[in-house]
Amino acid sequence: MGKEQQKQQNKEKKVAAQQQQQQNTGDEAGTKKQTRLGLDVTKTENYSEWYSQVIVKSELIEYYDVSGCYVIRPWAYSVWEHIQAFFDAEIKKLGVKNCYFPMFVSAAALEREKTHVADFAPEVAWVTKAGNSDLAVPIAIRPTSETVMYPTFAKWCKSHRDLPIKINQWCNVVRWEFKHPTPFLRTREFLWQEGHTAYATKEEAEEEVYDILNLYARVYTDLLAIPVVKGRKSEKEKFAGADFTTTVEAYVPVNGRGIQGGTSHHLGQNFSKMFNIEFDSLVKGQAEFVHQNSWGLSTRSIGAMVMIHGDDTGLVLPPRVADIQVVVIPVGITVKLSDEKRVELIEKSDALVKMLKEEHGVRAVLDQRDNVSPGWKFNHWELKGVPIRLELGPKDLAKEQALAVVRHSGQKVPLPLANLGESIKQLLDTIHAEMYKKVEQIRDEHMVICLDLEEMTPLLDKKCVILAPFCGRIECETSIKDFTVREEPADLGTAQMGAKTLCIPLEQPKDVQLPEQCINPRCSHKTQFFALFGRSY
Amino acid sequence: MGKEQQKQQNKEKKVAAQQQQQQNTGDEAGTKKQTRLGLDVTKTENYSEWYSQVIVKSELIEYYDVSGCYVIRPWAYSVWEHIQAFFDAEIKKLGVKNCYFPMFVSAAALEREKTHVADFAPEVAWVTKAGNSDLAVPIAIRPTSETVMYPTFAKWCKSHRDLPIKINQWCNVVRWEFKHPTPFLRTREFLWQEGHTAYATKEEAEEEVYDILNLYARVYTDLLAIPVVKGRKSEKEKFAGADFTTTVEAYVPVNGRGIQGGTSHHLGQNFSKMFNIEFDSLVKGQAEFVHQNSWGLSTRSIGAMVMIHGDDTGLVLPPRVADIQVVVIPVGITVKLSDEKRVELIEKSDALVKMLKEEHGVRAVLDQRDNVSPGWKFNHWELKGVPIRLELGPKDLAKEQALAVVRHSGQKVPLPLANLGESIKQLLDTIHAEMYKKVEQIRDEHMVICLDLEEMTPLLDKKCVILAPFCGRIECETSIKDFTVREEPADLGTAQMGAKTLCIPLEQPKDVQLPEQCINPRCSHKTQFFALFGRSY
Repeated sequence: MGKEQQKQQNKEKKVAAQQQQQQNTGDEAGTKKQTRLGLDVTKTENYSEWYSQVIVKSELIEYYDVSGCYVIRPWAYSVWEHIQAFFDAEIKKLGVKNCYFPMFVSAAALEREKTHVADFAPEVAWVTKAGNSDLAVPIAIRPTSETVMYPTFAKWCKSHRDLPIKINQWCNVVRWEFKHPTPFLRTREFLWQEGHTAYATKEEAEEEVYDILNLYARVYTDLLAIPVVKGRKSEKEKFAGADFTTTVEAYVPVNGRGIQGGTSHHLGQNFSKMFNIEFDSLVKGQAEFVHQNSWGLSTRSIGAMVMIHGDDTGLVLPPRVADIQVVVIPVGITVKLSDEKRVELIEKSDALVKMLKEEHGVRAVLDQRDNVSPGWKFNHWELKGVPIRLELGPKDLAKEQALAVVRHSGQKVPLPLANLGESIKQLLDTIHAEMYKKVEQIRDEHMVICLDLEEMTPLLDKKCVILAPFCGRIECETSIKDFTVREEPADLGTAQMGAKTLCIPLEQPKDVQLPEQCINPRCSHKTQFFALFGRSY
Repeated sequence: MGKEQQKQQNKEKKVAAQQQQQQNTGDEAGTKKQTRLGLDVTKTENYSEWYSQVIVKSELIEYYDVSGCYVIRPWAYSVWEHIQAFFDAEIKKLGVKNCYFPMFVSAAALEREKTHVADFAPEVAWVTKAGNSDLAVPIAIRPTSETVMYPTFAKWCKSHRDLPIKINQWCNVVRWEFKHPTPFLRTREFLWQEGHTAYATKEEAEEEVYDILNLYARVYTDLLAIPVVKGRKSEKEKFAGADFTTTVEAYVPVNGRGIQGGTSHHLGQNFSKMFNIEFDSLVKGQAEFVHQNSWGLSTRSIGAMVMIHGDDTGLVLPPRVADIQVVVIPVGITVKLSDEKRVELIEKSDALVKMLKEEHGVRAVLDQRDNVSPGWKFNHWELKGVPIRLELGPKDLAKEQALAVVRHSGQKVPLPLANLGESIKQLLDTIHAEMYKKVEQIRDEHMVICLDLEEMTPLLDKKCVILAPFCGRIECETSIKDFTVREEPADLGTAQMGAKTLCIPLEQPKDVQLPEQCINPRCSHKTQFFALFGRSY
């Protein structure tokens, strides 16, 4: 970028700041107060306040008057739609069909599988009244749909020919959490997909568990530009009622916490025995219970995206889920500019957007508002996290180029107009790769092997997630958690909670022999694997 | 079709019937009882039983243990997905964005608009408990989201520049009806989309009301092959809180009842005044309340499709919403057929399906099960309503043709293999047009003008919907309804309910002068229009 251009930009940003000030004091003029553009805090100085501000100011979330419930605004919902489009197409390729089961579940069905209900019961919301009448029997709202669906599975499953059953639904679920709610991360109602399948053999079912896990990993790596560790959940952390749970776990650099990204469960025959889902096994020559899976990915993924990529300027959207990938902003429209030149600039900008959309499938818009300055627009779209801002001014036009400004890096790239569609598409791919790499590098630097329990808490305070030899037992995991709890935070903003296992990585550390001694020095059981421990969401 | 082929078919159907009989008595052999294929009743002899059987046996619906709630199986849900794909793309072209608001609403918000809440309150489900704790304040589940969304609209709407607001959500809603529930038509939970918009001017808002109404009409005419009458609802029938409601109304031939297909409401400033949704009007130079619309289309549309097109053989799917448009069934595989010929037949069938799918975008499948006869398959896919069955036998292969059998008409059309993709696509379009015409013709024959109240009930019993001069007043509509109620059904299976207005058709009868006297002879008010009266769902 030339000096001239830089000067113009600085000028425009200044004007924007002034405009904003005027808007903020607009009360006196009888108009409503405008929310201040931009964030008041940095991500590191007050992370929780930063998160609240980002999600509201970038227009992802609106607060709501029922505690633990939030409005998912179009800017956030479009991210979900991109995730849906990808995942829905992929599971359809696997032969999964969408359907819809009621959100209400009778107490009788809900309580059929004991381990399962024990875990969910404290958070179940109950409908007890309709209009002015009390219901004869209270009815639960699904916290998940195993108990909703499986009585029906028993009806559907008559013969080995009825298998596999593979269904999915995109829906809302309710878990009335009493902990402090956080938009996207811990909400009383959330959106997700839940897949439920039944197979004749354990082998087929297990294969699918990993097929789905790989799709979940791709949602993060290919769409959200977030690296994940694939693994199994420990006995303590697995889904209530599952034989085993697999998970993708992401890392949040700002505070070093892990966040579960999506889980794919092998339920074995636990539910099929309780719900009598049987078939005539050709192999065994007798009735056999089906082998089941369930798997879910929720709008929590959007929260992970915000936490991991957002910066002090606001939201940073990975290109593939950004509803607007490129915002074109005409610049350099001063009083000196002739009407003719101005019209040319606007027309050219408009044509660029059309070309990007129609010929290259790039999600582009033109911001041609004339009541705000280019600088104000820069701030606005940076706050909203649009991956590329494309500035086009008279001087650019003369040089047959446009200036691309990359949101995540601030990098400025002049692009010839001649081949703009292709170069924008390449740039979007590059941005995706860079965003991914940036997180991966920090994550890798903070994923350390540790063999000594005493070292764990200091490592957690250094925002590490920890690969430690582990026996896998519930008691041992509880001890480790208790041992790593802090009475007081080590530092402003760091968490005090103890470590739990995020997962047992499918890919175990290479070049390191698994020690025989569990990380818990009091444990006398044999280690099974390296588990990934961390503070967690 | 040749005699030979006919004979073969009859034979195969006979074998299928025998197989089925065997399956039905399978209990003795220790296997579970198989649901009887095919319907036990005809549509005219016991319509309500017919409906229950069709939706279950064609695998659209599974019954559920919470009253008024049903499982929407993949076969039905895919119809909904086709409707979603069309409608979602169309509203996005209009600039509407998807979002998600909580399903819980506080009593305070719910009760803000009095007319509105009066209508919905008796059916509202209340959550009063979570886990074992009673909630401090009961929380309602949305019956519709005006009162959920509009407090937020007030936050979003600061200036004329924030308008229009155009959002939509695809979600579940709950109306705890105490009348007899019917799958798709009257259910306590159902799926729909609800659009909510706010404009600076009444004109813009009104224009959108009709844009959406036209899209709803297209869902019926272009996707579901169902003719509709577009109109306005009467004062009595309009949405609680709306200035006016527009609707598309379909006609159900079997019983002559009208069914509301989707409604698009102009809310005027009724809600904006209650929820304080204001903006600084440039035109008026002062604060003004926004002009609002809301509009919804639900899974009830699937019920209309079933009732209107289904026949004594089962479901009949309109091609554009059929998840399987063509089922290819190899036939004529007898013991005499050489292995080589058999393999050739299967391979050719498989290749046909691939070609139809990949080259022509036709949703085709091959049914190559070898445990059931072709005749059984014919029955199966007819019951499920697949628009075209494509039979391919050794003799067809020799003649380089396949036999298309059209579900809705039973028509048999030999099609040369040479140009099969194109001819199938044409045939699907023809089927759509024919299905539409068939219903339209019956509907038109039963839409009659009537000027005498005494004639109304006999006309209703003849399955008519009635265009009658009407003053438009609520009292008058109530009188007409009371007058047309029957103490006893005129005939087995006909309804006893009185007539209500389905709508005031936008297109009024041509060539007929509107009389000055309302259809109600006691009414002294001036007629306003012809209204369409009928028994209704």
